[in-house]
Amino acid sequence: MTVSVSLPQGVEEPEGLVDAVLAYETALMSDDVAALDAAFAPGASTLRGDATGLLVGHDAIAAFRRGRGGAPQRQLLALHVRPVDADNALVVAEVAARRGGRGLQTQLWRRDAELGWVVSAAHVSAPAPAVDARIWRTVGTPLVAPHGDGVLDGVGIAVKDLFELKGFALGVGNPTFLATSKPAKRTAPALEALLKAGAHVTGIAQTDEFAYSIAGANAHYGTPPNAAVPGALPGGSSSGPASAVANGQADLGLGTDTAGSIRVPASYQGLWGLRPTHDAVSLDGVWPLAPTFDTVGWLTRDPATLHNAVEATLGATEQRLAPEFVVAPSLRRDLDAEVLEAFDASVARFSPAEVDIPEPDELLTIFRTIQPAEAWKSDGEWVAANPGTLGPGVRERFEIAQGMSSTSEAAAREAMAVARERLDSILGDRILLLPSASSAAPSALASAEELEAVRGATLRLCSVAGVAGRPALSVPVLSATGPAGRPAPLGLCLVGPRGSDLALVELAADLFS
Amino acid sequence: MTVSVSLPQGVEEPEGLVDAVLAYETALMSDDVAALDAAFAPGASTLRGDATGLLVGHDAIAAFRRGRGGAPQRQLLALHVRPVDADNALVVAEVAARRGGRGLQTQLWRRDAELGWVVSAAHVSAPAPAVDARIWRTVGTPLVAPHGDGVLDGVGIAVKDLFELKGFALGVGNPTFLATSKPAKRTAPALEALLKAGAHVTGIAQTDEFAYSIAGANAHYGTPPNAAVPGALPGGSSSGPASAVANGQADLGLGTDTAGSIRVPASYQGLWGLRPTHDAVSLDGVWPLAPTFDTVGWLTRDPATLHNAVEATLGATEQRLAPEFVVAPSLRRDLDAEVLEAFDASVARFSPAEVDIPEPDELLTIFRTIQPAEAWKSDGEWVAANPGTLGPGVRERFEIAQGMSSTSEAAAREAMAVARERLDSILGDRILLLPSASSAAPSALASAEELEAVRGATLRLCSVAGVAGRPALSVPVLSATGPAGRPAPLGLCLVGPRGSDLALVELAADLFS
Repeated sequence: MTVSVSLPQGVEEPEGLVDAVLAYETALMSDDVAALDAAFAPGASTLRGDATGLLVGHDAIAAFRRGRGGAPQRQLLALHVRPVDADNALVVAEVAARRGGRGLQTQLWRRDAELGWVVSAAHVSAPAPAVDARIWRTVGTPLVAPHGDGVLDGVGIAVKDLFELKGFALGVGNPTFLATSKPAKRTAPALEALLKAGAHVTGIAQTDEFAYSIAGANAHYGTPPNAAVPGALPGGSSSGPASAVANGQADLGLGTDTAGSIRVPASYQGLWGLRPTHDAVSLDGVWPLAPTFDTVGWLTRDPATLHNAVEATLGATEQRLAPEFVVAPSLRRDLDAEVLEAFDASVARFSPAEVDIPEPDELLTIFRTIQPAEAWKSDGEWVAANPGTLGPGVRERFEIAQGMSSTSEAAAREAMAVARERLDSILGDRILLLPSASSAAPSALASAEELEAVRGATLRLCSVAGVAGRPALSVPVLSATGPAGRPAPLGLCLVGPRGSDLALVELAADLFS
Repeated sequence: MTVSVSLPQGVEEPEGLVDAVLAYETALMSDDVAALDAAFAPGASTLRGDATGLLVGHDAIAAFRRGRGGAPQRQLLALHVRPVDADNALVVAEVAARRGGRGLQTQLWRRDAELGWVVSAAHVSAPAPAVDARIWRTVGTPLVAPHGDGVLDGVGIAVKDLFELKGFALGVGNPTFLATSKPAKRTAPALEALLKAGAHVTGIAQTDEFAYSIAGANAHYGTPPNAAVPGALPGGSSSGPASAVANGQADLGLGTDTAGSIRVPASYQGLWGLRPTHDAVSLDGVWPLAPTFDTVGWLTRDPATLHNAVEATLGATEQRLAPEFVVAPSLRRDLDAEVLEAFDASVARFSPAEVDIPEPDELLTIFRTIQPAEAWKSDGEWVAANPGTLGPGVRERFEIAQGMSSTSEAAAREAMAVARERLDSILGDRILLLPSASSAAPSALASAEELEAVRGATLRLCSVAGVAGRPALSVPVLSATGPAGRPAPLGLCLVGPRGSDLALVELAADLFS
């Protein structure tokens, strides 16, 4: 390995520094985690950052290393050494990636009396892939041009891979499904409405398999990065559109929300997200999960784009919603004190009335009976014919779905009709406020048990709008503790009367921008 | 603007540092170039890097700023201040891009007795776009799956936007052309052969308009970045495939070479590139420029992948080429001493015989008469029907092409037959060595006059293989001075006997790996 070393004219190379840099490089290339940990300064103020975010503290950096499974192979080309004083120096390394492309690494080294040279801060840039396969399946510049002019001129859409797009096969988050899928003969009307209003398709974005998850992971394509919280799950199942929008790679995410698949990723990544009134938007050309609850929905960074997307889809409205808000103490059960405090502080100014939503667990049970029964009707035939093709979590849920009895399904449908009527009489035209999710985004390294607990608590919140068929808007105004103790976004959810979709966005835009 | 500032426990904030950081940010957001220049330490050792490369010295950084036209709008979220000593501190800033996504900026600040706080080194990461539109038109993961298994398993292809690909419209580097193009009904056989051997299509990559340039710029989509030389032209017209391969975003570039469109980008970006024997590879489904010279060609980072691509296309061979090399003093005219020195040093070990290629300018004239005449036959109708749609350079070349007389074309064809016979008798089965281009990649900011001079000198070299119809392999083993005085790659070109394509690659792989 020949590497050129340059210093400012007349400046001596600090003794042992270049050797320490080369030893670090050797440890990095062999993923010698112990040596890498030892090369970084101990303590809470050590820094390590890259395009995906900044890690603060030796422990966080060490944990990242253990989860990474080795750095991409590379070769040092040049070291630019800039001594600060006798015991501190900045070293900027130009590197060539084994797989092509150049990278850059900046490290601040300090000579410790006991440890020798150690890194106190590092910033790494690796060459970008053609496309982030965790977020996208297919991308263009644009992939599909607008079909008209309008309020969405210049807006790039990340389309969840559940929507038919003329000329492209449907993937529904599963490569086996994709491989036998034929190019679609038409574009789903919900997408066509956006294209007619001037938007273009940036690309087809990843989804949790068959949209049957709210975590945002995909065993085949990887977990899309949470743009707001490094190392956290993105939320799903509209995970690709949400990460694309939060990362600035698209302006509008077109997704679906059955159990929270718009609201949860919006909450986890600090986006605006609307699940509209059930049946308000055509689901033609959208792969079904559970039609009793399925909705098309949108994700944006700002309320104006969301407004324009809803208007392009549903038409303009004269309707105005009165700012009459309610909260339901029964929904507070199982929520962390921190989440409740943030929620209370945010909604206090609306002086919300308290309403009694009895037995929210019953709503959850209704949801958790009908949804799997319908999911099996939607996908059971394919799942049964293609054993071994589903990732963990989704596989288990389809196993449960297969066993759902028609008797309990029928009972749940009766209970749902009663519950919806009861919710209508309780809420009327008022707006129910609740957190969009039970917590900030969990760590991408969380255990299956932790995720199942988060899933249960969040579905419980989401099932209110699901059973009521009411529109639910997630507004990025709360905050809670995310992975590694750093602050992370959390959504405030506004559940409005059925048919109030655009008015709900307009009211929230007034109140929260 | 509220920004959180954190320091290690018990450490004081250096006086005036955060104010200096905030003032820098204000200057950056208003593109106050004078203030930004003043905020960076003067001298040759100041550093500024990002994912595209490292700039060394205050002058290079200042020039970059003047060419950039402002940084993307962003907001500081958090400053992590790490004082090194009383007069030096590292500041790592987490930033939120206005268009979504997070960025990271590391700066080493120094308190100068006269200048106050100045930046002596900076490293910036901005959020990545969904896809680099300068390199790609459409990308997938993959865009098209393999059609078989073979020597190209796992190899991702960047396909120049001149090749028909079933289901996708052809763009030929011009958005007006693309807009009226229909999805292709078949895939070009030259591409199909690669897919059958196990390769997949990563994406459709950009080309200079109608492939009528060797610079690598495109007025509509931007200039693809040169992965080897920050700030330099990528070389064209197979610019997108070359940048994709050099950046590690694809493994194999499928392009065309009429006047040097494989050899020049290979030379400029340090790649292996083969222009095969004229007529050896089917041009069915490939948009023509000048059929007398048009060839399909390949770009790779390594000789093995190139070998496999050629073998998958043309079949295996038992042929072995004797390592008999020649050089032609008449081709040295107009080349820089530096290029000649690098060339001589590299070929000395082959003890090449000298041959007399008389009148290389005549070869260039033949080329420059037939190529435009045929280019007008290929594209003149479209160009005439779509005025105002071509970028500079290409537009002027089509104007010249339109005026080419059939008399001079006929004379050039007669001269070409004579010249080819003469070249065959001079070269026989020996391999002609010459530089692939007249210089390393010019700066992307070079004037039209500079580029025209480079174009002339390089076409003169390239027209030998063009007129002879012989295969020409560019091998990345030379180096010359690139923009900003830094070393940059240059190709060594091996022109072999017609039909020796795979044997030529095998010989070069033996000699140069």
